[in-house]
Amino acid sequence: MSTPAVHVLAAGTALPGPPIDNATLARRFGMSAVWRQWVDSFIATDSRHLATNLDTGEVDYSLTDLGELAARRALASAAVAAEQVDLVVMGTATPDMLMPATVNLIADRLGIDGVPTYQLQSGCAGAVQALDVASQLIAGGRHRTALVIGGDVGAKHHDLGTELGSLSPEELVNVVLFGDGAGAAVVGAEPTVGSAEVRSVFVRLTGLDRPPGQVIEWFGLADRGRARSAGSEDYRMIEDSVPVMAAEVLQELLDVTGWLESDVDYLLPPQLSGRMTAKIVDRMAVPGAEEITCVREVGNNGNALVFFQLERLLARMRPGQHAIGVAVESSKWIKAGFALEKAC
Amino acid sequence: MSTPAVHVLAAGTALPGPPIDNATLARRFGMSAVWRQWVDSFIATDSRHLATNLDTGEVDYSLTDLGELAARRALASAAVAAEQVDLVVMGTATPDMLMPATVNLIADRLGIDGVPTYQLQSGCAGAVQALDVASQLIAGGRHRTALVIGGDVGAKHHDLGTELGSLSPEELVNVVLFGDGAGAAVVGAEPTVGSAEVRSVFVRLTGLDRPPGQVIEWFGLADRGRARSAGSEDYRMIEDSVPVMAAEVLQELLDVTGWLESDVDYLLPPQLSGRMTAKIVDRMAVPGAEEITCVREVGNNGNALVFFQLERLLARMRPGQHAIGVAVESSKWIKAGFALEKAC
Repeated sequence: MSTPAVHVLAAGTALPGPPIDNATLARRFGMSAVWRQWVDSFIATDSRHLATNLDTGEVDYSLTDLGELAARRALASAAVAAEQVDLVVMGTATPDMLMPATVNLIADRLGIDGVPTYQLQSGCAGAVQALDVASQLIAGGRHRTALVIGGDVGAKHHDLGTELGSLSPEELVNVVLFGDGAGAAVVGAEPTVGSAEVRSVFVRLTGLDRPPGQVIEWFGLADRGRARSAGSEDYRMIEDSVPVMAAEVLQELLDVTGWLESDVDYLLPPQLSGRMTAKIVDRMAVPGAEEITCVREVGNNGNALVFFQLERLLARMRPGQHAIGVAVESSKWIKAGFALEKAC
Repeated sequence: MSTPAVHVLAAGTALPGPPIDNATLARRFGMSAVWRQWVDSFIATDSRHLATNLDTGEVDYSLTDLGELAARRALASAAVAAEQVDLVVMGTATPDMLMPATVNLIADRLGIDGVPTYQLQSGCAGAVQALDVASQLIAGGRHRTALVIGGDVGAKHHDLGTELGSLSPEELVNVVLFGDGAGAAVVGAEPTVGSAEVRSVFVRLTGLDRPPGQVIEWFGLADRGRARSAGSEDYRMIEDSVPVMAAEVLQELLDVTGWLESDVDYLLPPQLSGRMTAKIVDRMAVPGAEEITCVREVGNNGNALVFFQLERLLARMRPGQHAIGVAVESSKWIKAGFALEKAC
């Protein structure tokens, strides 16, 4: 069965507030110079943006706010009006509420109505899941122009305002590692001057019988007073597994597209942290490809990351060039990736 | 563009614990006979099943537990092995955790691996959203056999164990109205003796500039001690809007399929409560159709409801018969529906 081509027309992103560097975090939490050195070398994320104001503890931005802004920028960049959007697909691990789904609140603010809206619950693979679903629904012919959104805001779990100085080491690592943000892309059935064709996109659960590498809880009214921890990460397992999985995704995309490693002009690797991304890129070993990475500046903002990479990619990609993007979700070991090609 | 046919092969469901009738609830909460009469006449839901043990306050079932059980029943009924499933799509408003997505925990228990898994965040329209996405992905040719799952467990918000007798009237209404449960269906590219063809399925956001009719919050560590309410419902707005929206979905499905009202053999209406469903059916007015309703016995268990209806439908449907299913999500006013036909 032949599949009609699908094109990424443009991407847009949004970050809350100013960049917060490690020196600012160290001052804010009264951490030592040794701690800051440890962050610099073992995390290697230089800054991040947070929805929570570090001084006041107020949450200044919701995921709806950031998703709306990113979507407006993507639509403007694609020169697509909200009325032309006939499908909205979003990926997030941290919706503002359980109901309504955040995708519907964003659609409402954009004036999008009368179309299907889907919100996928996922961690770092959610952006690719959303791109995958949107691409397949467009390829199926029922839709022409999709708005794809991804983002995460960890503010509900980061009690920076009232827990100053009392965070456990694990919680502090998460403050360093993660950031908040949102991104969006416009995906359509017709190419434009600035677009790149989706040659392949896939998402695959691979966690059979393996414990999750990352868990994030939510709490209800019945949990009042009981909640001790928002989740847990097995960073050792993540460090061991993610580079291998990323290399497997790369290989699979090369197999599917028939590209050689030397055909890959741009590599968009998983964005866990500056250090982890460097390890992953070493493992993937595509020496001729230009790496497109953003995590050092924006932090690990989950489902937003791929859109930051796409925004940079589309600005650089020239006719005939190829790009491969890889995302890995350690929650339950999900592989995800996509291959883009700019027509000659 | 011609779209390959997609078929619902079988459905399965799972409920936690025994049915809890209104007399039991009244005793448990020390409510009066007047209150019970009010429940009987103004809610008209006779019983529900709860994941939380009313005596101990313990949560005995997770959504993963119920989803796994429903999926096993659906697969057994379809005579499909887990290894044949090449796509899993789930809809829920109340995942067990934010990460991993519950769909992945269920897939893991079933031994399903190496395939895409999607979890849609949605209220009462999530089951149809999941059916819609699965159907389109199968129609697109990339998949052959999908497991579609839906369910909700409200246990995190129902603090029955420690808040005995102190619930507000609104919370008590929700205890009466809602139940816990899960359902599943197997959807495939090839018909079987027991299957029904998906003639049409759609989901559509229609809430432009309207406030949500239902809100459900989740809380993080940063909300400890601040959480006052798990959400809110505008029952007046719901009562006014849902019957109208349901009738519009019905009409749209008749238009798309070319069926006359007299062609509709079975009607699967929205399952808000016994009383609301009766009002909706009056409004939809398809006198020749047999109504398939389950809410009086199982309560409003959200994304599970459609599967309870499908299970009953597939057991009754004869060759040449037609069924229309309608779901409406009041969170942000989402219309959803599907039309099934059993081949002659």
